[in-house]
Amino acid sequence: MIQPGTSATPPPFDKVAIVGLGLIGGSIALAIKQHWPSCLVIGVDQKDVLEQAMLRYAIDVAADDPVVMAEADLVILAAPVEQNIDLLAELDDCVTTRAIITDVGSTKRTTVEAAKQLPTRFTFIGGHPLGGAPRGGIRHARPDLFVGRPWLFTPDGEAVAEALECLSGFVRTLGAEPHVVDPAEHDRLLAFVSHLPQLTTSALMHVVGRATGERGLALTGRGLYDATRLASSPADIWRDICRSNADAIGPALDDLIAELQALRDGLDTNTEINRVFESAGEWRAKLAALSKPTKGSA
Amino acid sequence: MIQPGTSATPPPFDKVAIVGLGLIGGSIALAIKQHWPSCLVIGVDQKDVLEQAMLRYAIDVAADDPVVMAEADLVILAAPVEQNIDLLAELDDCVTTRAIITDVGSTKRTTVEAAKQLPTRFTFIGGHPLGGAPRGGIRHARPDLFVGRPWLFTPDGEAVAEALECLSGFVRTLGAEPHVVDPAEHDRLLAFVSHLPQLTTSALMHVVGRATGERGLALTGRGLYDATRLASSPADIWRDICRSNADAIGPALDDLIAELQALRDGLDTNTEINRVFESAGEWRAKLAALSKPTKGSA
Repeated sequence: MIQPGTSATPPPFDKVAIVGLGLIGGSIALAIKQHWPSCLVIGVDQKDVLEQAMLRYAIDVAADDPVVMAEADLVILAAPVEQNIDLLAELDDCVTTRAIITDVGSTKRTTVEAAKQLPTRFTFIGGHPLGGAPRGGIRHARPDLFVGRPWLFTPDGEAVAEALECLSGFVRTLGAEPHVVDPAEHDRLLAFVSHLPQLTTSALMHVVGRATGERGLALTGRGLYDATRLASSPADIWRDICRSNADAIGPALDDLIAELQALRDGLDTNTEINRVFESAGEWRAKLAALSKPTKGSA
Repeated sequence: MIQPGTSATPPPFDKVAIVGLGLIGGSIALAIKQHWPSCLVIGVDQKDVLEQAMLRYAIDVAADDPVVMAEADLVILAAPVEQNIDLLAELDDCVTTRAIITDVGSTKRTTVEAAKQLPTRFTFIGGHPLGGAPRGGIRHARPDLFVGRPWLFTPDGEAVAEALECLSGFVRTLGAEPHVVDPAEHDRLLAFVSHLPQLTTSALMHVVGRATGERGLALTGRGLYDATRLASSPADIWRDICRSNADAIGPALDDLIAELQALRDGLDTNTEINRVFESAGEWRAKLAALSKPTKGSA
C-alpha cells in the first residue's frame, strides 16, 4: 500500500549521500524522504546544519566527515562549486561502491573537467536544478522546491546513458523536468539568464542604497522591491560561480554595460528608450509565457 | 448613515476632474467613488478609455474635451509628464473656478516650473503617488492601489498651506501616506529608487532575451522572472520621465555602470563580489523592513 505523499515507484537508489545541506541539498533530502521513506539519506555538513536537518527529518545519518558516505550508491555534491571540486578528489578515499556521482552547482565546465580524474568505478554526470528561492539555507528548504522547474544535466563522454536514465527518473519523481545540455552551452546560457541578473541586481541595490540611504528606500513603489529580490543572495556561493564562469559572465556584463551606456547617451531622445523597452517588453512576455509560477514561490 | 466602504468624512472636493485614466488616474477615480459616492468624478481621456472607466463606475462624467472640467474644484493631471505640462497651459481656458491643481507625474521639476505660469486663481501642488503596479492601463486600476503607499507632494512657493492640508487629507482617505519633498530632491531620489531600476531592468531583459532566445528563457529559475517584472513597463511614460529627469538619471546610470565594470574586472577575485554583495544584502534587508507589502501586490 502506498502512503500519502510517497511514490509508487521503488527508490532508484538505496543510500543517497548529500554533501552540503543548504537550500538545494536540504530540499533534495526532504523530497527524497517524502517520496521514498525507505531510502537512506546520509547528510554531510557542519554540525549545526546537520542538527537542523535531523530536526526536519531530512536525513537519517549525519556526519561532518565524508567517510560516512562509504556505501552510498548516489552521491550528490551540493556545496559551493569550488568545494564540490575539492570533494571530487576525496571520493576515491571515502566511497567504496560503484556509485553515481552528481552535483548541483550553478556552473558546469570546471566541475565536469575535474570529474574526469575520478576512478572509473564512479559514473559522474553534472547536474543543475533551477529551483532557486530568494533565501538560502536549510531553514528555507522544502520538498516541493523543484516541482515544475528544469533540472539540467551535462553528461560528458561515453557510457553514461544508464546513469542518466536513472538520474532523470530520480529528479522526475522530485517533480522536476530533466534536460540535457552541453556543459559549455550551459555555462554560456546561465551567464545570461542567471549570473548576469544576479550581479546586476546586487550592483543596483548597492548603488541605490548608497546614493539615497533609508530616506530614499522609504519612498519607493513596488518596483524596487520586486527588482531587488535577488540582492539578498549570499556572496560565498557567487564568488565561486563568478570565478568558475568568468569567461562567460564577462561578455554578458559587457553587453549590459553597452546597453546602459546607450540609454544614458539617449536619455533626451526617444530612439534608445523605444528600442530597449520594446525589445524588453517582448522578451518579458515570452518569459512570462514560459514561466509556470510554482506553489509557494513569492 | 455610512454605507459600507464609504468614508465618514465629507468629501473635501465636490467635483474632481481627472485627465488621463490609466492605472493611476483610474485607480484614483475608483477610490474616490468608493470613499465618497456623492463626489462627482469627471474623466477626460480618449473615448475607448472613457468607455472602460464608465463600465467600472469609476467616473460620472466622461469627455475627450477638457472643457468638461469647467466647474471642477480639484483637477488631477494623470497623463504622461509632457502631456501634463501641455495641459497646464490649457487650464485657464477650460477651468473657470478657483481650483486646486495637482498631477501624479513621476518627475516633478519641469511640471512644477511650468505650473508657475498658471493664473493666480489656481493653486498648484505637484504630487506623485508611489502606487505602481507591474502593468498599466485602466483595466489594472483598483481602488486600493495607494493603501499603505507614500504619496509625495512637492509644494513650491507661498500660500499653499491650506491646499496642501486639503490634498493630504484627500490622499489619506485613499489610504496613502502623504509626504512633503522638495522638487529637486524628489527628482534626485526617484532617479535612483525608481528610474534607474526601470532602465536597468529593461536593459537586462533586452540583453538576456537577445543573447539566449527562448531556449535560454525556458531554462531559468525564479530569479530572472522576479528581477524583470518591471520590463513590461510602457515606453511612452518612460520617454517623458527620462527626458524630464535626464540630468539626475544620467549620474545614477554612471554610478551603476561603474559598479558593473568593477564587478566585471574583479570576477576572478573575491574583493569586488564581497564588497558589492555585502552592501547589497544590507540595503535589501533595510528595504524589506521598510516595505509593507500591500494586498494584491504580486
